[in-house]
Amino acid sequence: MKVSILTIGDEVINGKIINTNASFIARILEVNHFEVERHLAVKDDKTEIIKALEILYQNSDIVITTGGLGPTIDDLTKEASSSYFNEELIYFPEVYKTIEAYFSASKRKMPENNKKQAYFIEGSIVVDNNYGTAPGMIYEKLGKTIINLPGPPQELEPMLNETVVPFLRKKINVKGLKKEYRLMNIGESLAESLITSLYDNYPNVKIAPYASVGVIDYVILVKDENNKKSFEKCCQEFETILKDYIIGDWSQNIQEIIVHLLSEKNLTIAIAESCTGGMLASRIVDVSGSSKVFKEGMITYSNQAKVNRLGVKQSTLDTYGAVSSGVAKEMAEGIKKVTNSDIGISVTGVAGPTGGTKEKPVGLVYSAIHYKGKTNVYKNYFLGDRLKIRERSVGQVLFELYKLIK
Amino acid sequence: MKVSILTIGDEVINGKIINTNASFIARILEVNHFEVERHLAVKDDKTEIIKALEILYQNSDIVITTGGLGPTIDDLTKEASSSYFNEELIYFPEVYKTIEAYFSASKRKMPENNKKQAYFIEGSIVVDNNYGTAPGMIYEKLGKTIINLPGPPQELEPMLNETVVPFLRKKINVKGLKKEYRLMNIGESLAESLITSLYDNYPNVKIAPYASVGVIDYVILVKDENNKKSFEKCCQEFETILKDYIIGDWSQNIQEIIVHLLSEKNLTIAIAESCTGGMLASRIVDVSGSSKVFKEGMITYSNQAKVNRLGVKQSTLDTYGAVSSGVAKEMAEGIKKVTNSDIGISVTGVAGPTGGTKEKPVGLVYSAIHYKGKTNVYKNYFLGDRLKIRERSVGQVLFELYKLIK
Repeated sequence: MKVSILTIGDEVINGKIINTNASFIARILEVNHFEVERHLAVKDDKTEIIKALEILYQNSDIVITTGGLGPTIDDLTKEASSSYFNEELIYFPEVYKTIEAYFSASKRKMPENNKKQAYFIEGSIVVDNNYGTAPGMIYEKLGKTIINLPGPPQELEPMLNETVVPFLRKKINVKGLKKEYRLMNIGESLAESLITSLYDNYPNVKIAPYASVGVIDYVILVKDENNKKSFEKCCQEFETILKDYIIGDWSQNIQEIIVHLLSEKNLTIAIAESCTGGMLASRIVDVSGSSKVFKEGMITYSNQAKVNRLGVKQSTLDTYGAVSSGVAKEMAEGIKKVTNSDIGISVTGVAGPTGGTKEKPVGLVYSAIHYKGKTNVYKNYFLGDRLKIRERSVGQVLFELYKLIK
Repeated sequence: MKVSILTIGDEVINGKIINTNASFIARILEVNHFEVERHLAVKDDKTEIIKALEILYQNSDIVITTGGLGPTIDDLTKEASSSYFNEELIYFPEVYKTIEAYFSASKRKMPENNKKQAYFIEGSIVVDNNYGTAPGMIYEKLGKTIINLPGPPQELEPMLNETVVPFLRKKINVKGLKKEYRLMNIGESLAESLITSLYDNYPNVKIAPYASVGVIDYVILVKDENNKKSFEKCCQEFETILKDYIIGDWSQNIQEIIVHLLSEKNLTIAIAESCTGGMLASRIVDVSGSSKVFKEGMITYSNQAKVNRLGVKQSTLDTYGAVSSGVAKEMAEGIKKVTNSDIGISVTGVAGPTGGTKEKPVGLVYSAIHYKGKTNVYKNYFLGDRLKIRERSVGQVLFELYKLIK
């Protein structure tokens, strides 16, 4: 069943508010096997809302609206919905009582204009709102369903989960299959070129990549259980081709996997950073419970600090420079020794935009991991601005750490 | 001039990605005196994109698209745009060279499918992308303008600011006036309540707040130069009322202002972090040129590290606990002393979700700044999840540092 989402509000259109409702609704519907077709956002204007409904019902059976259910004259969603369906809004006295009770519970008198919130199309289902004064409305006519929900996420989210989803699930009987993968250390173009054969060989299977900085997520899905065999074969081939890059599914961040693995294996880490400046440690500390495995971090930005804190040799700095394989190695070994951790990690590089040379251009980053008496050093050239180069450095060394300890 | 925004991508439609691009574009256009009419989001489907353009051009002169400019077969935005305008995509050899150079800069071979990104409608303007391989396209025909931009915000945002806005501003002849303010350490409700009189006294002046984590941005603008007097008076009053919270305009991040100030005053800082785990130092290191002022950071997550590295007294830890005014003070003084910097900064707190107690709930954060022989300690209760509490802690201490040194 096809669904479209309509967000109503001047503040969304002019960019004051980010439209998180649309993605929330979409995610909830997708995992319940509905197909979301479009998201549209329009201003608080009755004609615009009616026009929007016309557009969305062209290829959807269900339209879920959010916003415009408040008590003010700008709130026009139910008015526009009733006009679109050519119906009247009528007074629901029992809803009026609920709204009045909402006010008296907080010792306030109900303002006159809140009465508007007790009007609905005759025969519609009222969606209770336990977190505000704006109840929602579900109305069906001629095979089209409209669902009006309020704009504040803290009201919309429970109403969607508790009332709307159970209502909608009665309408469908889909049994699709889906698998998600998270990949690291590979670009989208390369990943796509490695799996072109899958697109050709499994036309009934949907394969879609979602790239963000340092990570590519893939979803593989079929809508029909009859394609189970193709689905499984496609997943298997995907896993074989990309096995060196798959770190898990979408629910897992690499830092969570790492903290979990370290904790399981009773290993501790310490981190010495230069160009990443604390970003790597911060990613580890993001994970609740990281205190069990993360011993300490040092941001040795200056050469002096590298010598004083980590025991990097002045001669290594003088001969090879701060951004070098030798310094990365000594930093990783130094932090391990100083903190007495099991694993020592280091990053040193040229994050730019200044400071690059012909031999050591902006984007050149060395990282090192000391583990079980051995130090691996990694040399990379990263693209992007200062922030991106630092983010990519962090992603790369986390990925190598994951490979070493898994 | 009326603009609509079209977001293209399955990952937006299915809710995997929140559509922050639409609000970013809307906000930038609004402050540049354009009227945004609608936001629409559709899947990676050529027919859907063409249909979307038909819908949006019904009441807009300009459509800005985001997404679908990548190298894969799912990326169809330019193909759909050219079909809509009934034009061919042709090969731009000079763009091809730029993309090739982008790959060779990182010692990688350009995959064959990236060649697709060098095709544009004849006569269109190519929007350079310095942060990725997908250039944008501006094309005009029969009074309609289409602007195709890539999906990743770190690519789209500079392209919009540097190329698209200057291009669009030539199209309108608005002689409006505009001023931007960035505020910290104040909530939106309080800020709004302090300036209600401005909304009443200057009906011709548009005042709009844009809130995000730890920061509120305001824009004050008039569309007509004849309102210059009201505009100036309004700005003046705004500045007087909110002077304690204004840190600059939208172009300035607090860390940039701080690094600039420190550099000007020839001051160095060192940072000792517990719950923020490197995030504070990382914000400073974000700023190019921070090496001049940032001496060193230590992430003393464990009590042992606080004692060993910073000289925090075991007795202070035993008596008051790691999250306490005394420990914050000793950490700031310790890092200053150990690194011989001018300023020592520390953060220690309960970031949660576990570890909170009745006396020290999740969100309790102490920070301290040692400067000119004196240590200021700050106690705060922050709301939100682990990441938000850590972000707010960093914002707070940066704001206090700014106030001390400005």
